[in-house]
Amino acid sequence: MEISAIALKELERLGAEIKLSEQLTQIRHAGTSLEVQTDKGAYKADLVLLALGVRPATEFLDGSGIELAKNGAVIVDREMRTNVPDIYAAGDCAEIYHMVLKRNVYIPLATTANKAGRMVASNLNGGHVKFPGTLGCAAVKVGEKELARAGLSEAEAVSYGFDAKPVVVEANSVPHYYPGSEKITIKLIYERESKRILGAQAAGPKGTVLRINIFAAAIANGMTTEGLGMLDLCYAPPFSTVWDAVHVAANAAK
Amino acid sequence: MEISAIALKELERLGAEIKLSEQLTQIRHAGTSLEVQTDKGAYKADLVLLALGVRPATEFLDGSGIELAKNGAVIVDREMRTNVPDIYAAGDCAEIYHMVLKRNVYIPLATTANKAGRMVASNLNGGHVKFPGTLGCAAVKVGEKELARAGLSEAEAVSYGFDAKPVVVEANSVPHYYPGSEKITIKLIYERESKRILGAQAAGPKGTVLRINIFAAAIANGMTTEGLGMLDLCYAPPFSTVWDAVHVAANAAK
Repeated sequence: MEISAIALKELERLGAEIKLSEQLTQIRHAGTSLEVQTDKGAYKADLVLLALGVRPATEFLDGSGIELAKNGAVIVDREMRTNVPDIYAAGDCAEIYHMVLKRNVYIPLATTANKAGRMVASNLNGGHVKFPGTLGCAAVKVGEKELARAGLSEAEAVSYGFDAKPVVVEANSVPHYYPGSEKITIKLIYERESKRILGAQAAGPKGTVLRINIFAAAIANGMTTEGLGMLDLCYAPPFSTVWDAVHVAANAAK
Repeated sequence: MEISAIALKELERLGAEIKLSEQLTQIRHAGTSLEVQTDKGAYKADLVLLALGVRPATEFLDGSGIELAKNGAVIVDREMRTNVPDIYAAGDCAEIYHMVLKRNVYIPLATTANKAGRMVASNLNGGHVKFPGTLGCAAVKVGEKELARAGLSEAEAVSYGFDAKPVVVEANSVPHYYPGSEKITIKLIYERESKRILGAQAAGPKGTVLRINIFAAAIANGMTTEGLGMLDLCYAPPFSTVWDAVHVAANAAK
């Protein structure tokens, strides 16, 4: 929420009019005229883009004996093997192991598909490469802002039963006196008792996504907020503050 | 060597004339005229800058009973305690524990000084905070190039007795079709048998230093090249290739 609000603000700064929580009821199309009807209003449009999520196209596997998850994704083990000998699955059609949840999830992303594909190639050739797991890392550029996530969101952490605590900080990308210093907003989600980092999300200027990758490495290794807060990172004014935004977020966890 | 060559090239591109391996014998100063004499030539100068390294100014401790290292740095344990009860030391005057070497080193940097100072404050107040260790992370901007390091250099790894193997890669900062795609050169140093990452150095465009921070997190956690090569990192064309430069370097290790 704290992070997506920044994307919303950036879109509005760029002149976009955002309508949320409206239900699409009809798209009217006559000649070159397009109109979108929702339960709250009607909007003229030049172009209508539908972003409805992704569903595995695995209907062709009906009756094959290959086990599918409820959403239709192929169930695989950490070597990308299905339940049928010698049949492997990888990519947007298949589930993938999640490092923090220690169970399969459906997160169809190019990064995971690439890694899973490479593993299948190795394992088809007699290898036994096991996927360490996805962290659900994702990034998007909205106007001039970078947004990214690694690990669990607060809502995900809670829904999976973690005793999760969030902290949100605003830190400088580079020292205030250095040209181009901007704020990075970071939301860190960690386990209340152990202080283990479960997830991180951020929005800010160039360099925000790469910082989320530092969190990804920390989450993959089970680092605590204390450990990350004392991690040796590079410092020089063109790149960061002495305590980088990553440190500031980690050290804000109580 | 592979990395500093890039800094040299960038300085020459900017019009600097570089003279290496010359021994300074004299600086002549008459009125407003300055001349530097070396064993190989004489150079007119507007300004002479001497960068001769850093030495701890601990002469005032002579006779105090506080143990100093050969170079004069105060010897401390991981709680920043000297050998004298209730006396702590931190910053450029003191040694610091190195995470990879598992011994004290002298690396006087602002990052470490800040962390050590905070620990001393905690520990003076009854705390027992132990420093996880420095990685010798450092970064510098040379013209348009970012240069950074984390962990051990190849020479350091060899000198400390590691069976170290280097690999050097050139990878795209962002996909070749995306505006501003440039090459990042990464040198990775790892243990031959275990594949544990010992150090990484890089030179390239904006984002190079933050990538070295990903290596720092990997090194701090004892990650192998295989582990890092399969680490889930954020991907979208404005930020990276599907296999980020970090992956490319890790997966180049054989």
